[in-house]
Amino acid sequence: MSNLSNVFGIHAVRSLLQRSPQRVRRLLTDARREDARMRELLQLAQGAGIKAERADAKALVGRVGDVAHQGVVAEVEPLPPWQEAELLQALTGASAPLVLLLDGVQDPHNLGACLRTADACGALAVVVPKDRAAGMNATVRKVAAGAAETTPLVTITNLARCMKLLKEAGLWIAGADMSGDKLAYEADLAGSLALVLGSEGEGLRELTRKHCDFLVRLPQAGSVESLNVSVACGMLLYESLRQRQGKKP
Amino acid sequence: MSNLSNVFGIHAVRSLLQRSPQRVRRLLTDARREDARMRELLQLAQGAGIKAERADAKALVGRVGDVAHQGVVAEVEPLPPWQEAELLQALTGASAPLVLLLDGVQDPHNLGACLRTADACGALAVVVPKDRAAGMNATVRKVAAGAAETTPLVTITNLARCMKLLKEAGLWIAGADMSGDKLAYEADLAGSLALVLGSEGEGLRELTRKHCDFLVRLPQAGSVESLNVSVACGMLLYESLRQRQGKKP
Repeated sequence: MSNLSNVFGIHAVRSLLQRSPQRVRRLLTDARREDARMRELLQLAQGAGIKAERADAKALVGRVGDVAHQGVVAEVEPLPPWQEAELLQALTGASAPLVLLLDGVQDPHNLGACLRTADACGALAVVVPKDRAAGMNATVRKVAAGAAETTPLVTITNLARCMKLLKEAGLWIAGADMSGDKLAYEADLAGSLALVLGSEGEGLRELTRKHCDFLVRLPQAGSVESLNVSVACGMLLYESLRQRQGKKP
Repeated sequence: MSNLSNVFGIHAVRSLLQRSPQRVRRLLTDARREDARMRELLQLAQGAGIKAERADAKALVGRVGDVAHQGVVAEVEPLPPWQEAELLQALTGASAPLVLLLDGVQDPHNLGACLRTADACGALAVVVPKDRAAGMNATVRKVAAGAAETTPLVTITNLARCMKLLKEAGLWIAGADMSGDKLAYEADLAGSLALVLGSEGEGLRELTRKHCDFLVRLPQAGSVESLNVSVACGMLLYESLRQRQGKKP
């Protein structure tokens, strides 16, 4: 039981049922929800041989907390952790992939929030170094609000080598840095892209900065020196998504 | 002592020394920093009759934690809380003001993060209802990373009335809602604007939604249903700032 995770919300559970129904162990739905989206989801579950159990809203909140669960929670086997090989494999044939690299984010809340945002913005995966950085744990899963079960976390031993491999796979490497010569909205973030953010206090390390193809900075109009890393990550992934959607025919 | 706060970073402390030196009680600087920006800051302090005390990096981190303090921490009297009257006063004559309204954000970490981002994006103030919402406390101040001393938090009793007053003051009211008819980058967020975000789990309340001039949604490309409120706030304030900078001559 203890290593199972919860995914909630109609959209998230539906995409889970479509992509990997074999990971769903239990499906709990609010008996009072009878709308079209819920009926479609229940049909999808039935087609996959998964029996939905009825639950009340309180039981759902008890599982996932005060979030927009929309009357559905799935108990799932956790997404297996990825290493460099799985990442490179997934990049093969991916169209304009977006990958997030976090260089030394220590706070599990920040890692969870970045994972949640990476999922919402369509990133293929989130990459973290094995050392000097937060890894997957219960706090990360909770803050990620289901995204830990849909967006792979890739643990690597050598960030510089990984950046080199990503370049060879055709990705541009954009580092987020206050000294960046271009503002985020002046840079091209719409193609195959790896976005690199540094740690909460220090930003990008010198070695990491050197391996970037270019550096971007966020616009600032206030007094405080820097943004929270998960907020900066959100702004940059939003900008990338904005540019991607603008390029659609 | 206990009700004093810390502001850190060259830019934040400089703007504090320029705008309200009378609030600075102590100024601590890293003895090893001797660059031009630090010298300019020390001259500014001297001009305001404030004597800088030398401290080592460890002492600074002990005060403010693992953040980019850049060798300077100021101990200041907290910014006085604002009410509706101070907000309306500040709006008089402000050019294209940006105000953030949070309708029922419960988590002090989220409020602190929103305050920090609001400051960084040039918002005039952050408005929260007195009831059913987090207010200013030590956690909010810490997470806001100095922004609680530069961006006023306005506590109000009636959000609908406040929105009406903001409209009368010439602001457009934009609500963040997944059902919004326009994507954030399709809407005009560059003028006089109040941006309204709802609570973590529930989003905007029906009554709040009704008082908005228009609703905007963020682009989504993933599995998870929603974004963390402080990340969504960051994306929308970034979009507003992007549009504002684009309009500059």
